[in-house]
Amino acid sequence: MTDPFVVIGGDAAGLSAASKLKRERPDRDVIVFEKGSWVSYAQCGMPYYVKGEVESLRDLLSLTPEAVADRGIDLRRRHEVVAVNTADRTVTVESESTRFERSYGDLIVATGAHAVADPIAGGDLTGAFTMHSMDAAAALRAFLTPPNAVGTDIEKGGVVPDLEYVDAERVERYAEMEPPTGVAIVGGGYVGVEMAEAFSAHDLDVHLFQRPDRLLPEFGQAVGETVEATLVDHGVDVRIGTEVERLAGTDRVEAVVTADERVSVDLALIGIGVRPNAGIVDDTPIERGASGAIATDEYGRTTAGRVFAAGDCAEMRHAVTGEPDWVPLGLTANRAGRAIGSTVAGDPTPVGEIAGTAAVKAFDQECGRTGILDHGRAREAGFDPVSETVTAGSRSGYYPGAAETTVTLTADRETGRLLGGSIVGTDRAAIRIDTLATALESDLTVPKLERLDLAYAPPFSPVWDPVLVAAKVLNGRLSDAE
Amino acid sequence: MTDPFVVIGGDAAGLSAASKLKRERPDRDVIVFEKGSWVSYAQCGMPYYVKGEVESLRDLLSLTPEAVADRGIDLRRRHEVVAVNTADRTVTVESESTRFERSYGDLIVATGAHAVADPIAGGDLTGAFTMHSMDAAAALRAFLTPPNAVGTDIEKGGVVPDLEYVDAERVERYAEMEPPTGVAIVGGGYVGVEMAEAFSAHDLDVHLFQRPDRLLPEFGQAVGETVEATLVDHGVDVRIGTEVERLAGTDRVEAVVTADERVSVDLALIGIGVRPNAGIVDDTPIERGASGAIATDEYGRTTAGRVFAAGDCAEMRHAVTGEPDWVPLGLTANRAGRAIGSTVAGDPTPVGEIAGTAAVKAFDQECGRTGILDHGRAREAGFDPVSETVTAGSRSGYYPGAAETTVTLTADRETGRLLGGSIVGTDRAAIRIDTLATALESDLTVPKLERLDLAYAPPFSPVWDPVLVAAKVLNGRLSDAE
Repeated sequence: MTDPFVVIGGDAAGLSAASKLKRERPDRDVIVFEKGSWVSYAQCGMPYYVKGEVESLRDLLSLTPEAVADRGIDLRRRHEVVAVNTADRTVTVESESTRFERSYGDLIVATGAHAVADPIAGGDLTGAFTMHSMDAAAALRAFLTPPNAVGTDIEKGGVVPDLEYVDAERVERYAEMEPPTGVAIVGGGYVGVEMAEAFSAHDLDVHLFQRPDRLLPEFGQAVGETVEATLVDHGVDVRIGTEVERLAGTDRVEAVVTADERVSVDLALIGIGVRPNAGIVDDTPIERGASGAIATDEYGRTTAGRVFAAGDCAEMRHAVTGEPDWVPLGLTANRAGRAIGSTVAGDPTPVGEIAGTAAVKAFDQECGRTGILDHGRAREAGFDPVSETVTAGSRSGYYPGAAETTVTLTADRETGRLLGGSIVGTDRAAIRIDTLATALESDLTVPKLERLDLAYAPPFSPVWDPVLVAAKVLNGRLSDAE
Repeated sequence: MTDPFVVIGGDAAGLSAASKLKRERPDRDVIVFEKGSWVSYAQCGMPYYVKGEVESLRDLLSLTPEAVADRGIDLRRRHEVVAVNTADRTVTVESESTRFERSYGDLIVATGAHAVADPIAGGDLTGAFTMHSMDAAAALRAFLTPPNAVGTDIEKGGVVPDLEYVDAERVERYAEMEPPTGVAIVGGGYVGVEMAEAFSAHDLDVHLFQRPDRLLPEFGQAVGETVEATLVDHGVDVRIGTEVERLAGTDRVEAVVTADERVSVDLALIGIGVRPNAGIVDDTPIERGASGAIATDEYGRTTAGRVFAAGDCAEMRHAVTGEPDWVPLGLTANRAGRAIGSTVAGDPTPVGEIAGTAAVKAFDQECGRTGILDHGRAREAGFDPVSETVTAGSRSGYYPGAAETTVTLTADRETGRLLGGSIVGTDRAAIRIDTLATALESDLTVPKLERLDLAYAPPFSPVWDPVLVAAKVLNGRLSDAE
């Protein structure tokens, strides 16, 4: 009897791997150790739950523990793997009541990432949150909901009791507090921007503090500026280039403090990034890459035999640079986990590359990005970057609903190869980034991009799609440079 | 002094070529002969003008004759080129008052296509229309508008007088008639489907007759069935597999006659396809391809020296088969015309390939298609086609507005290469076809398609985009077949 496939972490990557192996090889034992109570939840949906657009926390569960069990997977929640021994092929597991070792035939490390909060003093005050757990989302929504709000969409606390794994104590504590009136969002990346929309829906005074010189830095300047203008239009107080020194308060958050100012708030949301949970591999032959995440090859294999890693704790190869990179995103985790499940089942399957394709909603603006936009990064990877930004219509100009769509493309001057792109607009903009993501994976040049046979129909796209307009302009510039 | 660049046809392809050459080489003389009164109009927008969503016929003009002149182009409307002499490099031109010859340095044939109406007896009765000219669109809208409808969006006839080139006599004749109450649409392709929506907006009884076994045959079965159900839901009487034998009536259309039935209507719209206007090249060394359209190479050159052809009258190379094909669509015409303008200017520029990418709106359904879906056609091109159709969500299931999206993919069994795809759904479905169109141009295989790093964000796309779900399922089937 082969030793089991042991999975460390019961979220997207881990459960995808477990499910795929069990489907292909029902004879293999599969054990998943998850240190928390939650499994397989849609982290990207949490801002919409806090906002109130998603009714119940339960809606964010992709798989219940029962559904996992139905797949024949031995799921052990509240079991933390505290050590990996690659020589003996064992893991050491701790739960509340016990500590034991377990042998593995194959192992996948799928421990995810954690939100960075530590650098901000006061991050442990009541009223300070990060958005990296279902418990935080539940507590936050409980905090935002007026007491006795029965009969509205959101019943105070009423959305959680049927989920046994929520941190009920924390939720109830926040449910009993008066709802906040002012919120500081620390960080203007995805989480910050999405949460600005969520808090605005609750009529809070929203202050957003962003240390870098624009919002959504990974999306490039044009997107950042458009999103900033949109947030301001919606009443958000956006402070660009402003560092939050600390959160002030005795037990509860009372204010954020910057170099120049003290802004009174009773809620603080810290969204300054995530870091891989990769400590488990220290003191093992499993190597971490330059990013700090676990190094993997094209099959998701680590540097130790029969040990895989996937998801937010692992590096993957970047489609543009061909180099290892760390971009923790949901599809990457699901796809890599699934591929590893196939590989362990005996069908070697590449985990695929990442292009850093991402989309985010900022009120009515749809934003997308893919590949390498930043010129510094492009130069590091050996390219000579050149970019163009154009604004074009989303539909034929005469058709109702046409909206300005701004596209930035970055290419390599010498080869004309597309390196990356971004898009922002209110009319079907985000989904258009997939055209560029697909082009990137095929190493398409800008002249070829310009000649793509994309769809034209007045209600959906003008003759020259905004992506094609951008390619045309950038191509003109590349030709001039010859 | 070089002889001028002569352009036959003043629409998308011809004016794109003329404008591009004039921009790059202001010293070159450019003459455009257009046999009609209209230039550069958005044919694809006409259904929305008839519907009333587009207010004025003027909105559909991309370029006015004055704007063309401002570009330094010598535009001669109501001048028909009746002969081409490639030995002498001359064209023979007729206008109302004169007939003359003109030498050319380079020539582009951009004569477009015409709607097929002849096979239907009665197609010349009053009340019978095709949708292939601005005059027809103007007359149709005049016919649909109630007399004395001043003050509504649509003033009877009031939308046209400021355009000197409209056929005012025809418009006024229809404006004076009582608006129709029942309409027969003959043909269930793009035009038929779009016009069903347009006529329904005017509260007509709409009967749609389609001889083939489904609507939008080029979009595949899944799209055809969804669109049929949608039209029926909106009260359209859809007759599939039903041939119209003739239109009956003395002077005016009174009924459509099929083998079994006579349906009373007072308007008939014939949309049974278009054919290339390529007769001009007969008796010249300029060859036509198997489709009947003018044969061209990758630079849009015909078989005669310094003679190009582009747009709806010309063949292009298909991205999947690599063979000449004829797919008359707006982007193709614009792109090929522009490329030929560059080539004539001295910068040889490929016209690009066509994938037959198209999108169409059918009430709330968005439909897209690209490449080769039809198995018969795939086999003719030497492939062994295999298809899968899946229905998946357009957004994360918990996010409001998620809608079913149906994707069909066709691939070659042996190589796994993607051959074509279609999509239908109500939520941002059409634009997703661009992902497949881009994949086709890169000869992507289905396993690679499955690994594309597409955008995921709950409001726009689920973790596994419907396109990826379809790739996953088709890939499973390709693997099983190994």
